Amino acid sequence: MDNDKPCVGVIMGSTSDWDTMKAAHEVLDEFGVAHECKVVSAHRTPDVMRDYAHTADQRGLEIIIAGAGGAAHLPGMVAAQTLVPVLGVPVKSRALNGLDSLLSIVQMPGGVPTATFAIGNAGARNAALFAVAMLANTRPELRNALAEFRQKQAEKVENDELPL
Amino acid sequence: MDNDKPCVGVIMGSTSDWDTMKAAHEVLDEFGVAHECKVVSAHRTPDVMRDYAHTADQRGLEIIIAGAGGAAHLPGMVAAQTLVPVLGVPVKSRALNGLDSLLSIVQMPGGVPTATFAIGNAGARNAALFAVAMLANTRPELRNALAEFRQKQAEKVENDELPL
Amino acid sequence: MDNDKPCVGVIMGSTSDWDTMKAAHEVLDEFGVAHECKVVSAHRTPDVMRDYAHTADQRGLEIIIAGAGGAAHLPGMVAAQTLVPVLGVPVKSRALNGLDSLLSIVQMPGGVPTATFAIGNAGARNAALFAVAMLANTRPELRNALAEFRQKQAEKVENDELPL
Amino acid sequence: MDNDKPCVGVIMGSTSDWDTMKAAHEVLDEFGVAHECKVVSAHRTPDVMRDYAHTADQRGLEIIIAGAGGAAHLPGMVAAQTLVPVLGVPVKSRALNGLDSLLSIVQMPGGVPTATFAIGNAGARNAALFAVAMLANTRPELRNALAEFRQKQAEKVENDELPL
Amino acid sequence: MDNDKPCVGVIMGSTSDWDTMKAAHEVLDEFGVAHECKVVSAHRTPDVMRDYAHTADQRGLEIIIAGAGGAAHLPGMVAAQTLVPVLGVPVKSRALNGLDSLLSIVQMPGGVPTATFAIGNAGARNAALFAVAMLANTRPELRNALAEFRQKQAEKVENDELPL
Amino acid sequence: MDNDKPCVGVIMGSTSDWDTMKAAHEVLDEFGVAHECKVVSAHRTPDVMRDYAHTADQRGLEIIIAGAGGAAHLPGMVAAQTLVPVLGVPVKSRALNGLDSLLSIVQMPGGVPTATFAIGNAGARNAALFAVAMLANTRPELRNALAEFRQKQAEKVENDELPL
Amino acid sequence: MDNDKPCVGVIMGSTSDWDTMKAAHEVLDEFGVAHECKVVSAHRTPDVMRDYAHTADQRGLEIIIAGAGGAAHLPGMVAAQTLVPVLGVPVKSRALNGLDSLLSIVQMPGGVPTATFAIGNAGARNAALFAVAMLANTRPELRNALAEFRQKQAEKVENDELPL
Amino acid sequence: MDNDKPCVGVIMGSTSDWDTMKAAHEVLDEFGVAHECKVVSAHRTPDVMRDYAHTADQRGLEIIIAGAGGAAHLPGMVAAQTLVPVLGVPVKSRALNGLDSLLSIVQMPGGVPTATFAIGNAGARNAALFAVAMLANTRPELRNALAEFRQKQAEKVENDELPL
Repeated sequence: MDNDKPCVGVIMGSTSDWDTMKAAHEVLDEFGVAHECKVVSAHRTPDVMRDYAHTADQRGLEIIIAGAGGAAHLPGMVAAQTLVPVLGVPVKSRALNGLDSLLSIVQMPGGVPTATFAIGNAGARNAALFAVAMLANTRPELRNALAEFRQKQAEKVENDELPL
Repeated sequence: MDNDKPCVGVIMGSTSDWDTMKAAHEVLDEFGVAHECKVVSAHRTPDVMRDYAHTADQRGLEIIIAGAGGAAHLPGMVAAQTLVPVLGVPVKSRALNGLDSLLSIVQMPGGVPTATFAIGNAGARNAALFAVAMLANTRPELRNALAEFRQKQAEKVENDELPL
Repeated sequence: MDNDKPCVGVIMGSTSDWDTMKAAHEVLDEFGVAHECKVVSAHRTPDVMRDYAHTADQRGLEIIIAGAGGAAHLPGMVAAQTLVPVLGVPVKSRALNGLDSLLSIVQMPGGVPTATFAIGNAGARNAALFAVAMLANTRPELRNALAEFRQKQAEKVENDELPL
Repeated sequence: MDNDKPCVGVIMGSTSDWDTMKAAHEVLDEFGVAHECKVVSAHRTPDVMRDYAHTADQRGLEIIIAGAGGAAHLPGMVAAQTLVPVLGVPVKSRALNGLDSLLSIVQMPGGVPTATFAIGNAGARNAALFAVAMLANTRPELRNALAEFRQKQAEKVENDELPL
Repeated sequence: MDNDKPCVGVIMGSTSDWDTMKAAHEVLDEFGVAHECKVVSAHRTPDVMRDYAHTADQRGLEIIIAGAGGAAHLPGMVAAQTLVPVLGVPVKSRALNGLDSLLSIVQMPGGVPTATFAIGNAGARNAALFAVAMLANTRPELRNALAEFRQKQAEKVENDELPL
Repeated sequence: MDNDKPCVGVIMGSTSDWDTMKAAHEVLDEFGVAHECKVVSAHRTPDVMRDYAHTADQRGLEIIIAGAGGAAHLPGMVAAQTLVPVLGVPVKSRALNGLDSLLSIVQMPGGVPTATFAIGNAGARNAALFAVAMLANTRPELRNALAEFRQKQAEKVENDELPL
Repeated sequence: MDNDKPCVGVIMGSTSDWDTMKAAHEVLDEFGVAHECKVVSAHRTPDVMRDYAHTADQRGLEIIIAGAGGAAHLPGMVAAQTLVPVLGVPVKSRALNGLDSLLSIVQMPGGVPTATFAIGNAGARNAALFAVAMLANTRPELRNALAEFRQKQAEKVENDELPL
Repeated sequence: MDNDKPCVGVIMGSTSDWDTMKAAHEVLDEFGVAHECKVVSAHRTPDVMRDYAHTADQRGLEIIIAGAGGAAHLPGMVAAQTLVPVLGVPVKSRALNGLDSLLSIVQMPGGVPTATFAIGNAGARNAALFAVAMLANTRPELRNALAEFRQKQAEKVENDELPL
């Protein structure tokens, strides 16, 4: 893995999604995974999205993490235009709390898959951890880092004290 | 209105949507509105969809009716790529009965509108009636036909007999 | 388009809906579309609603945008009493976040269509943009303005910077 | 109570609602409550609905039972145009199983009440039983009949045998 | 109507429901309808509830308005133990916003009806207005008061000014 | 455990619930747990229900399993009138598939608990298994039978062959 | 019951669940039931969870109360690995208000039961009261304490004064 | 890729899930991806599941596809016990149509990711296609096969004829 060249692209439909999606950015940083973060709107910049998807492979992206809210078309439409695996993150929406975002991303018809994660920050975080696990299949040092992360995570829970 | 040249495009994500969308076709036929019907998939044929949207205006389409189910991205993505007004019809989906289709179509973020109608046949029928009403704003004969349609519809209800 | 005579009517069930519906007013203003804004309640002033619907056409209205919350009957009942196309905006409700408003507006039975938009501000904004697109079918200057709006909207996204 | 003059009006949005609403008719028959049954559509025959509501009182109706499905506006719109109490019955809808009908009827804003009952047959049956209970407040013979009905209903349950 | 003797009972499952149910109390006060307000819990005081229901008729109650939240059993269980008509008000619940309260009240099986109103304050207000309409069937002065209330309500809407 | 005297009561709101609740009966039979099955309706036979709850303890019942659908009040109202633990089974309802039954049973306010299980047969079956587990806390032979049941259940899964 | 040795285990998926689960702890304290409270995560510490479940019986636990939110697997997975009865408490989740937690806990397939309680504090409180009722089946002093608790609870309601 | 040694494991909670999950098997077969199919139940065989997860890596599995319905814990619990990426497929459930399955799988808390796909067959099919895309990141021949698959899929849509 070349640390200078992004292998993961993190995109989102609007700057307001950053509050959610920065959790993905932070996890990737934590694991030293080179990545890029960018606003790409399916509805407002469909051609930018198309170029992003079409060039993803040749630009070295191995995974795309796409977050969007409401009628969230970004993950599915990017997935439709590239063979690079796309991980979708439903952003919590104002009226329906992200149930609309979730269904718009996860209910893809057979033929074009999008891997979906939980609504909001937990989903962004987990999409990034999943990206790390995907990369770890061929990168032993990431596999070790992931094993260590899990280990520490478990220890943290075991040391949790309730305020009894 | 030139009867030979379609001014309404009726598109749908898959042939299985025809059972729903033919209700739109029938209404347009009934009103003598020239139209075309076509399968265009947002996910499986994104470039066909893009061409369809980009050329809609110059090909004389004044309205596009788009039906899709599940993570229904077709109406919104067509709307994102043309200024021609797009009417979306949520097709009833297998697991969630079209609630996913409805939210995927109607919950568009501000900036790119899609007009949404009811789930299933009633929605397809009403999208076509709405298209007729739009066209009627500048075509007096359609306005008259629509008035007559409403009149007959009311008379039919008034003549309904319950099997008491 | 005569700028002095409204061609779009923006109505809502109560003054408390203004917070949502003013987004429609602002968009119409931005595009220079003459319009009127008024409180008309389906339940509290059914005869005012009826008169509004019955006279809409002769008063020059080409489109009606109607916003309402809860058991939101305004858009559908206005649509039932005029041939002028009605755009419905579900206002976010206190208990159910506008899911009730959405279903009350969008699930119209076949025969009387109401075009529905997203819950809340995005919906009000998009209903107005849709009205502009409808008008643009016969008014080239609006078509140009809309094209420019889309262009600027895209540029804004492309210039968005994430606080990395 | 004059058996020849209806004191309860049972209305519904379409003949297809009869399967549900006949349960109300049967209960009223069982209690000997004079009533009328009629198709009145809020959307297709708004003026018939208006006349029905406006004349209900003078025609001797003390209660109106109104059933409708989907974007079910009939109960609320009748209630808006008469002081006669309106009982609403949500008819099970094709896609959303009557959840849309229920919310469209029950979520009335403050000022114009509609009493709502369960989705489907149970609701139609209970609306009629409620009508009987309302009438029974001033008609001792109905009160007795209702007491007897409850008694028999209880006995039937007590005599129920499970096929063990 | 004897102003000293309550003809409407307003009950609720807990003191925390008062914020919602006082809207019913205020409407009844406004119309001069003698009523009583009381906390009666289906789950915590089932025998008090039973006595309340059993004695309602002989104590002169003609209508009972019952509000409850969550697994809201109060309206249905009171209805099961008296012939006095029961109006149910779903109180907004902490987790599910009153959807649980609504379904627990409205989905009564055939045989024992409960008239249901909207979730929260609007529902409490409307239950009281419905009670007034029920009483008005035999009390001309209430009918007049209700007509006047509707008139003023309509005038208020007609005089509403939007902050344009 | 005296096999002749029931220690578990299985009740349900109507004979139509037997299709669901017989799964509980069969499990109890399989484990040789003496039990009784009976129709008890919260709404149609509130006094029978009250007697059932009040005498449960003295009649030797240690657990009550109560199934009901729609506005399912039986489990909670029995729980309100006895200290014997009550296990509630939401029966699948016609319109809302048991979501109403589930919420009506599980969302009990603090103070009177009802243990809730899955909608339909799986829930009835699990309520009975839970009853066995409760009894097993003081009856070693049931604990052994339960351990054996689990063992066989696991073996069955391990021997499952897919029709590849 | 030996007060020094816990017979109830209260576990939860994360320290953030304590706000909800302390309601269970307080009830158990109030009744003098010896118990332990601990963070055990199904996903982050699966082996700790397994050990907890496997040793529960021999360590003297008669009941386990498990709270979790979102994709709440803790109650079901503990139940799968012990014969000790498990009571599940759905913790209110950020996006979906605990509906996801509830369904993840209650919809267990037939064969491995989890008793489920209401979302949030009421559920935690009721799970503990249910545990007390279970223990009371063989401990007369707890039965008496529970009877007294119910009595006081009823008295409190009867003494409630509304701020009229 | 060694065709004899499975690199993808397809597991499901019960044989009844095979109707859904065979769609995954068929896609993997179509692409010549060596895989194994097996029933593994989180609740009925937790130790088999644990062994499956613990040995997945050393047995050469690079991806696990796990399908389950209702309180669907299998995908998340396998993910908790291995670093191999897990793809979850919500199986349509009897009462809630798979909404419970979906939420139980997708709403994983931050720290342990599960990639989720659509409810039912489309989801099983897409999980397999996603697995192929993941493998294709390092296997050029799969990348080509996937490109060809997409090409053919698009052609099929373009050749679709509507029965006009």
